[in-house]
Amino acid sequence: MAKKSFPLAKAYRLLEPGPVVLVTTAYKGRANIMTMSWHTMLEFEPPLVGCVISNRNYSFSNLEASGECVINIPTVELAKKVVACGNCSGQKVDKFKKFGLTAGAASCVKAPLIDECFANLECKIFDRKLVAKYNFFILEVIKAWMNPAQKHPLTIHHHGKGTFMVDGETIKLPSKMN
Amino acid sequence: MAKKSFPLAKAYRLLEPGPVVLVTTAYKGRANIMTMSWHTMLEFEPPLVGCVISNRNYSFSNLEASGECVINIPTVELAKKVVACGNCSGQKVDKFKKFGLTAGAASCVKAPLIDECFANLECKIFDRKLVAKYNFFILEVIKAWMNPAQKHPLTIHHHGKGTFMVDGETIKLPSKMN
Repeated sequence: MAKKSFPLAKAYRLLEPGPVVLVTTAYKGRANIMTMSWHTMLEFEPPLVGCVISNRNYSFSNLEASGECVINIPTVELAKKVVACGNCSGQKVDKFKKFGLTAGAASCVKAPLIDECFANLECKIFDRKLVAKYNFFILEVIKAWMNPAQKHPLTIHHHGKGTFMVDGETIKLPSKMN
Repeated sequence: MAKKSFPLAKAYRLLEPGPVVLVTTAYKGRANIMTMSWHTMLEFEPPLVGCVISNRNYSFSNLEASGECVINIPTVELAKKVVACGNCSGQKVDKFKKFGLTAGAASCVKAPLIDECFANLECKIFDRKLVAKYNFFILEVIKAWMNPAQKHPLTIHHHGKGTFMVDGETIKLPSKMN
């Protein structure tokens, strides 16, 4: 897969609409995948993302220890694998192997890119102030990738209990907003 | 409009998919509306929501001073008004009057409900720890309302610069996730 570098200043356009994402981590040579929906942009430049990664998840300690992760954005074609990744723990399962996902090399972090995802955001922990109380990590996006072959990626949005809304039509309105 | 009380434990299902929302505040008898997309769930029960309200916005000081707000969730029918609310400041404009939106009485806070929105979440500030550094407020949802007449509300999701994605189809997959 030939992904292209994506401008960091536009990274917010990928996360602001609230897609379900797959967070990859790696520590001591072992990679993992976690399904996540609780994230928000916090700043445009440098792009800061806040997200909840529960300390009940295997990814929590990987992220804590390595200080790095990748936020991978899947499309609806991957929905079954996204849910499957959310339904088991990396403590017991190699999710890349089990779900047939491809770990690509990132450029700035040790956590892998999921090749099948149309966009990947390499991140480093920026602020741990709310980790202890809320499991809330503030991440800085330091490198972004986009698959130019996926012209109209349809992301999915979680409504709870395995119900997902798929991206519908796009509308454009005159706006002064970023 | 006859809205029904909505279970607090299910409030996450409304915000987790990432809809654009309208935040209402009130201070010293003056109400305002702010368009917002940077929010995330932080906890199920009590429902905690983290959101960025910039100190460049008029709503920032209203929220700071009153400690309260309402998160109102609009559907695509309101998209033009949502953008219009984002393109002007409450310092100069009464947005309810200017955009023909109806301020209904909330039950636990002084900030008004926007009647035209299909769901409304009354909130109180829960934690101000990240306000100074990130304009990030942690809110507790203390009362939720839902319009039962709107069976299939289609929310909108911001992709930047006035481009919005409208809710598409819904899919259901077997999941152990909340």
